[in-house]
Amino acid sequence: MQPDKATSVIPNTGRARFLDACHLRQPDATPVWFMRQAGYCLVEYRELLKKYGVLKIAKTPELCARVTLMPVQSLGVDVAVLYADIMLPVEEMGVALELNQEIGPIIQHPIRTQQDIDALRVFPTEEIAPFVMEAIGLVRQDLAGKQAVLGFAGSPFTLACYMIEGRPSRDYAISKGLMYGRPELWHALMEKLTTMIVNYLTAQIRAGVDAVQLFDSWIGSISPSVYRRFVQPYNRRIFEAVRQTGTPAIHFGTSSSALLDEMKDDGASIIGVDWRVDLDTAWKRIGYDHGIQGNLDPTIMLTSWPVIEAEMHDVLRRAGGRPGHIFNLGHRVSTATDENLLRRLVDAVHETTRR
Amino acid sequence: MQPDKATSVIPNTGRARFLDACHLRQPDATPVWFMRQAGYCLVEYRELLKKYGVLKIAKTPELCARVTLMPVQSLGVDVAVLYADIMLPVEEMGVALELNQEIGPIIQHPIRTQQDIDALRVFPTEEIAPFVMEAIGLVRQDLAGKQAVLGFAGSPFTLACYMIEGRPSRDYAISKGLMYGRPELWHALMEKLTTMIVNYLTAQIRAGVDAVQLFDSWIGSISPSVYRRFVQPYNRRIFEAVRQTGTPAIHFGTSSSALLDEMKDDGASIIGVDWRVDLDTAWKRIGYDHGIQGNLDPTIMLTSWPVIEAEMHDVLRRAGGRPGHIFNLGHRVSTATDENLLRRLVDAVHETTRR
Repeated sequence: MQPDKATSVIPNTGRARFLDACHLRQPDATPVWFMRQAGYCLVEYRELLKKYGVLKIAKTPELCARVTLMPVQSLGVDVAVLYADIMLPVEEMGVALELNQEIGPIIQHPIRTQQDIDALRVFPTEEIAPFVMEAIGLVRQDLAGKQAVLGFAGSPFTLACYMIEGRPSRDYAISKGLMYGRPELWHALMEKLTTMIVNYLTAQIRAGVDAVQLFDSWIGSISPSVYRRFVQPYNRRIFEAVRQTGTPAIHFGTSSSALLDEMKDDGASIIGVDWRVDLDTAWKRIGYDHGIQGNLDPTIMLTSWPVIEAEMHDVLRRAGGRPGHIFNLGHRVSTATDENLLRRLVDAVHETTRR
Repeated sequence: MQPDKATSVIPNTGRARFLDACHLRQPDATPVWFMRQAGYCLVEYRELLKKYGVLKIAKTPELCARVTLMPVQSLGVDVAVLYADIMLPVEEMGVALELNQEIGPIIQHPIRTQQDIDALRVFPTEEIAPFVMEAIGLVRQDLAGKQAVLGFAGSPFTLACYMIEGRPSRDYAISKGLMYGRPELWHALMEKLTTMIVNYLTAQIRAGVDAVQLFDSWIGSISPSVYRRFVQPYNRRIFEAVRQTGTPAIHFGTSSSALLDEMKDDGASIIGVDWRVDLDTAWKRIGYDHGIQGNLDPTIMLTSWPVIEAEMHDVLRRAGGRPGHIFNLGHRVSTATDENLLRRLVDAVHETTRR
């Protein structure tokens, strides 16, 4: 065990480091966090999960805060990302769902008609998912400004696909069928989801998060022209609403290489990319007026330290010491990842990039 | 039923039309075929499958030829693509495998050590998969030059991943672990696979196919720099060997938007793209000295004719009547596709583009 090694080497600067990167200022070292760092591979978390389940943890502010804080302590990351499921606000809209640990979210009555859409409730900012806002308060209090707090929401495209399919899908055939075949229904659903997401992120910002990330995890399944037609206006509304609060926003997508030219114009300060692109090429494409987040292949974490170290250096070399790089994996941490290797990676990124 | 409507409207020119496109000459109409057209949604095929199973059909030249010819008759496509599984030549290398209809290919003893690789047999061109070559002869004879015959092979990357994982995988973690952690093993396996693929494609060309396609179905899981390091030299050797025979080669990849700049330099005459890119953007990137194949989203085929027709027009508009476009879906035909809609699509592409 090497408790708090990263934070003892470079004390108390995680939040400043992260916010510097968000605002394209030169940080003292490159900030690091991992998608799904709260949950999955930490032993302490797995015990809580067995005892309570995802929804119980996420909806109990004390438990949620505890899980959110775990990786800050055990991995030394610069950011505490809220422990929550992207489907939580969908449930708040009145959609009954089950989070099946094998399959993913399952909705017994998928949303496919005008009636289904009409029945969706959209809470005002003041009332949406209060347990999430309370957890954010507890996390802020505990961190006392030492690490950043990151809020997030699923993107309207991703949430719409889940709601229409009723479960994770390989090809989103039902969603695309509705999108192409009944565009008026698609747009009605996206409208409502967008309003909900704006309210949800605004509430998180009021509760004190330092930045927010929009998870556009499934966006790589459509082409740029389809994105412009069916998705872009909604993402733009969300990023515009966040921008008005002065809070930085990260727009993360997977398999999104073809979409970078669109995403860069949608209003996020930072674009999160997966490992399928080279970071230097991607940054050049989105422009240096944006920050970039990424992009070590998560499967690299399943190898050994020499391989991880070499590939980390490759990512950092491509970032070129330019301000605005947030180090992350290209997608969420794999369940089988050894937390000791994650901790070592956080230390190595900080030490390598320290100024 | 509208038997042979497409071929009765524009008779006997399928092969010429396809070869014109391959050589960037203006065809009389845009050629059409579908990946996995032989098999899956045709009722007649499903009955044969129930009776014999994939491997029995593929290894019995008369049955294989019959399935290969089915879509030419029932859909009116311009190309008869060989009915075969990409794993057939892997079995010829001495790897015992099972084609599980739910899961996909399963290898009980995955290839993960130098010993495993040493044990792989590489047959010379004259001896590899003779049943495939016999089927090609039968198909040629039956078509008598009216439609083109297309051979194919799985790419070394895709076959290596299957062989290392032992079954389909979401993240290819074991394969990548070996690629990064034991690069000498990776390269030894790729070497042997490349020699086998060259021999296999050369044998198909000698048996009379008009063109070949390399299925790089999983290539979208790696970045351009990783592609250059671990894959490109092998693909180049394959396309160079095919080029020397004077036979056109199609290089198909999915999620390959980030890789188009690499793929265009690898020696294929035609690049096959999936629906995640806009055809006009992709063609511009690979250059008009290449043909392009694609790229209607296969899920569109699960909607209704008006939607299919509109999206077909969008693809054709992006192709812009430029010589060198081969119309196809962006990936294989979904099992649930109505064959009547496929037939209607073939007709409509021919009629819309007829000169």
